[in-house]
Amino acid sequence: MNRDTAQALLASWKYERAVDHHCHPLRRWPFQLTALELRSAFTEALDPELAERHVLYSAGYQAALQRIALVLGCEPTEAAVLERRNRDDSERHTRRLLDQPPTEVMLVDAGFSSPESFTLAEQERATGIAQREIIRLETLAEALVKTANDPREWLAATRAALREGINRGAVGVKTICAYRASLKLQPVDTETLGAAFSALRLRAERGQPVRLAGNSLCHAVLFEAAQECQQLDVPLQLHCGFGDPDEDLAETSPLGLRPLFIDPTYRGLRIALLHCYPYHREAAYLCAVFPGAYMDLSLTIPFAGLEGFRAMRETLGLCPTSKLLYASDASRYPEVYFVAASLHREALAEALGELVDRAVLSSDSAVAAGRQVLAENARHIYRLAPTDTG
Amino acid sequence: MNRDTAQALLASWKYERAVDHHCHPLRRWPFQLTALELRSAFTEALDPELAERHVLYSAGYQAALQRIALVLGCEPTEAAVLERRNRDDSERHTRRLLDQPPTEVMLVDAGFSSPESFTLAEQERATGIAQREIIRLETLAEALVKTANDPREWLAATRAALREGINRGAVGVKTICAYRASLKLQPVDTETLGAAFSALRLRAERGQPVRLAGNSLCHAVLFEAAQECQQLDVPLQLHCGFGDPDEDLAETSPLGLRPLFIDPTYRGLRIALLHCYPYHREAAYLCAVFPGAYMDLSLTIPFAGLEGFRAMRETLGLCPTSKLLYASDASRYPEVYFVAASLHREALAEALGELVDRAVLSSDSAVAAGRQVLAENARHIYRLAPTDTG
Amino acid sequence: MNRDTAQALLASWKYERAVDHHCHPLRRWPFQLTALELRSAFTEALDPELAERHVLYSAGYQAALQRIALVLGCEPTEAAVLERRNRDDSERHTRRLLDQPPTEVMLVDAGFSSPESFTLAEQERATGIAQREIIRLETLAEALVKTANDPREWLAATRAALREGINRGAVGVKTICAYRASLKLQPVDTETLGAAFSALRLRAERGQPVRLAGNSLCHAVLFEAAQECQQLDVPLQLHCGFGDPDEDLAETSPLGLRPLFIDPTYRGLRIALLHCYPYHREAAYLCAVFPGAYMDLSLTIPFAGLEGFRAMRETLGLCPTSKLLYASDASRYPEVYFVAASLHREALAEALGELVDRAVLSSDSAVAAGRQVLAENARHIYRLAPTDTG
Repeated sequence: MNRDTAQALLASWKYERAVDHHCHPLRRWPFQLTALELRSAFTEALDPELAERHVLYSAGYQAALQRIALVLGCEPTEAAVLERRNRDDSERHTRRLLDQPPTEVMLVDAGFSSPESFTLAEQERATGIAQREIIRLETLAEALVKTANDPREWLAATRAALREGINRGAVGVKTICAYRASLKLQPVDTETLGAAFSALRLRAERGQPVRLAGNSLCHAVLFEAAQECQQLDVPLQLHCGFGDPDEDLAETSPLGLRPLFIDPTYRGLRIALLHCYPYHREAAYLCAVFPGAYMDLSLTIPFAGLEGFRAMRETLGLCPTSKLLYASDASRYPEVYFVAASLHREALAEALGELVDRAVLSSDSAVAAGRQVLAENARHIYRLAPTDTG
Repeated sequence: MNRDTAQALLASWKYERAVDHHCHPLRRWPFQLTALELRSAFTEALDPELAERHVLYSAGYQAALQRIALVLGCEPTEAAVLERRNRDDSERHTRRLLDQPPTEVMLVDAGFSSPESFTLAEQERATGIAQREIIRLETLAEALVKTANDPREWLAATRAALREGINRGAVGVKTICAYRASLKLQPVDTETLGAAFSALRLRAERGQPVRLAGNSLCHAVLFEAAQECQQLDVPLQLHCGFGDPDEDLAETSPLGLRPLFIDPTYRGLRIALLHCYPYHREAAYLCAVFPGAYMDLSLTIPFAGLEGFRAMRETLGLCPTSKLLYASDASRYPEVYFVAASLHREALAEALGELVDRAVLSSDSAVAAGRQVLAENARHIYRLAPTDTG
Repeated sequence: MNRDTAQALLASWKYERAVDHHCHPLRRWPFQLTALELRSAFTEALDPELAERHVLYSAGYQAALQRIALVLGCEPTEAAVLERRNRDDSERHTRRLLDQPPTEVMLVDAGFSSPESFTLAEQERATGIAQREIIRLETLAEALVKTANDPREWLAATRAALREGINRGAVGVKTICAYRASLKLQPVDTETLGAAFSALRLRAERGQPVRLAGNSLCHAVLFEAAQECQQLDVPLQLHCGFGDPDEDLAETSPLGLRPLFIDPTYRGLRIALLHCYPYHREAAYLCAVFPGAYMDLSLTIPFAGLEGFRAMRETLGLCPTSKLLYASDASRYPEVYFVAASLHREALAEALGELVDRAVLSSDSAVAAGRQVLAENARHIYRLAPTDTG
């Protein structure tokens, strides 16, 4: 590979402000970071033993340290990076990491937030970057269980709440069905759904935590949300592929979503497949044949070392550049947003640069393709108006 | 990678006439091509929105434009390519695209033809390239539904028709089971088959279109055809992996074909796995352990940009070069035959060149391996006599 | 890729004595090898047609010939290699192949041995390399069928025998469940297990061969062995991914093993996933999120040509270097041990070298990572004391 080609592409996008179509709230600063906290931010593992003993030996974390150290101007070691970031002013540190490369707007799934997270309004003020909401479907649907007498009422209330959220300014809906059920979608059996709902309703009445799980409940909500998104003309974000071990990776191939692509009910619906790895070749196929299929690689890029770069090249086999989206899927610490943003541009520059070097694309086409991925495709499918993006 | 090694391999095969073991009829010329028609020829999408808005941004189409422009001597843009090809004489244009690289014989699945397609005899005269027929199993079996009283009669008639077709000069049988059923082959339940056949028979009696679909009908026909091919000593071509969205990609892994490889009933049967991507690593495994398994990458090469080159390298991990076949899977427009043929040689040259550069193969062995893939393996498994190949 | 970086890494490990955590007994020498025997040692095929007609055209075998010829100082052809090895003194020939690169200890699955195999004690004397036993679960459990009256007794006897074996000095347990059942683990139905055991017991009583197969028997034994390994604090080796065609590759993804990783019953159990290809990306994911998951690529490396090198790079995407193990999975002929050992180091040097060249790892970190993979990780999970390793 010709490194100059990739460098030239990176330079051409230097002032290109990206749309991060899928991320989470930042932690309210100031705060100090420990080694375990930083490591935990670069792994999908939930068991602390991974952060304690293994993350340090992963290519993703090492690449992250290298990129952060370069910006902070310190040694590329965990200790040096932590020392430097913890003694710096939190706001200045964050701004430095969020400004370069620049982001125009963040589409934020706030369903994963905690009391120490920024609200969207706070985050917009604190970062100077426009913020738009993505509604997390399951969180919303769980809150409505106790107000409904049967699945029909519950699903109607969920759809009404989605409409309300979009009218209030949210620009899309996200489902984490992959964490709660199989993505091998099946028609919902009414009887099973009724029984599952009754059990959930009982928990709600008793004040117990309500957690949507299992195929009948999750698929029912997903199918309804898909219809509502189609009618509201907003994208449905759908986590597939790898994630934390709450999900069974074997059940999360995007190929299982076929009913959403071929059933005329959903005609016109835009679906953004999130993560996708190691099913990115399959996701790219869906993007190549179904008008409504879009995809991103999100955490594959900052978590998988050079494998994220390979995934990008493999994706650009079947997936048109008009169907690929940029996303950091970052949360809490500015380090993650920065590493995701930097590596995405590098991965894109290498993948498109390879196409230039191999005489598949002209340099101009490669520059334009990068702009599609970094911002234009997202602006198009989320119908982002100039006012949406600061 | 050392580009010189690949170039030397390409040069060594310059006069090697390929056996295209799997393609379709050309459209009868003269005809003019629109941008949408050309784009539609380089995608598996059926929805026109892909050709209208996305194919232009796919690496496969861009690579195709580059290759075609080089031969036509024009700018590598869609407009220039179309202008040049549409004002040229159709026959001269076609000959130019079909002659370089040269093809010795085309094995043609005519089941996909339309009134505007050449017959095989016409195509042989028009192109100067020998043509041999591949029988499309499902088309043949569908036509025999109305003449049979039960599944047994129908399957017997199908086998008789296959025998007749082979005796008449066809050299193999192709199944598109992947478009009609799952490739996770299961023993056929006689009762289910009987019911499915009765329903199909009723449609035939009423003059309604008869379309073979579902596991019981499709697997029954496939198992019978496999036995017949084994007895007739001709290969069975089996589409697996990606294709147009009529198929569910999740159901098309070649690993589901295991019964055909381990059941002694089929001992000696040669199966050519077509397409395979993204299951080419799995297909290569089958080729490595089962004597009767062969494979091609067909449309992976012209449709998937540099990913087709990667698929070729990955395939040559487990798949011996004596098991890989060349196929264009092209139809209608000479541009597709040309791009498929050119890129296959390039992909092969790079994959084998990498093995030379890494001291795995000698140059001579790599040249010989290319000849196996381009022609010798197909000549062997289809028992092509010198008279078959003009 | 910068070849110098890889070469420097290889040189740094020159005197690093590896732990081969998963291999088989050598054939008692002296013996002469035929071409078919050597070819059969570099393929998973069982049908002799592969060795007769295809293995010669596989990248894996060609790479093996090149490596062996280099050491023997002869032409890299099959004939020259066989001539040279067959006229040399068997012991000297074997020592030459086993000494370079050096091995500290072999963990040997003797369940695959034959009368012509060395015992472990003989092998230790003959090779000068320390040998430790890995117990093959299914072989052991089969031998205990006839002494038990019901599944409960049989499973208890199996666990007792495992305890005894470990107390006697074995350092781990290996399951070949993938050859006998699906790896999509399911809770065992007691009734089905009872019936399956009765049938097996009847065979044992009649003196017929007892072969453990089917999900209920194999999963029951696997779950019990997993519990026993956890209590004995020894790793459970679990063959997944490709192998000989007795297994159905579609059923051997490591993702099916999820119950072993999430059920608290097995908390603390260390599982070494063997082979993994083409599911190595999935295996790497398991290693990244579950504390007890470890993996090797074993036969992927000597059998899959340059694809083995790619699998190594892809594995080091999500898999920390503290979770990857070296294994030859070699048996019978010293040529296989040598080729596996050499290519593993090369593949590791290239994958880690790429990380150095791309500024992800420092050279020192890459050297240290190689040591983890070659020996340290295995020493840690098998609790190998200095006395275990000669």
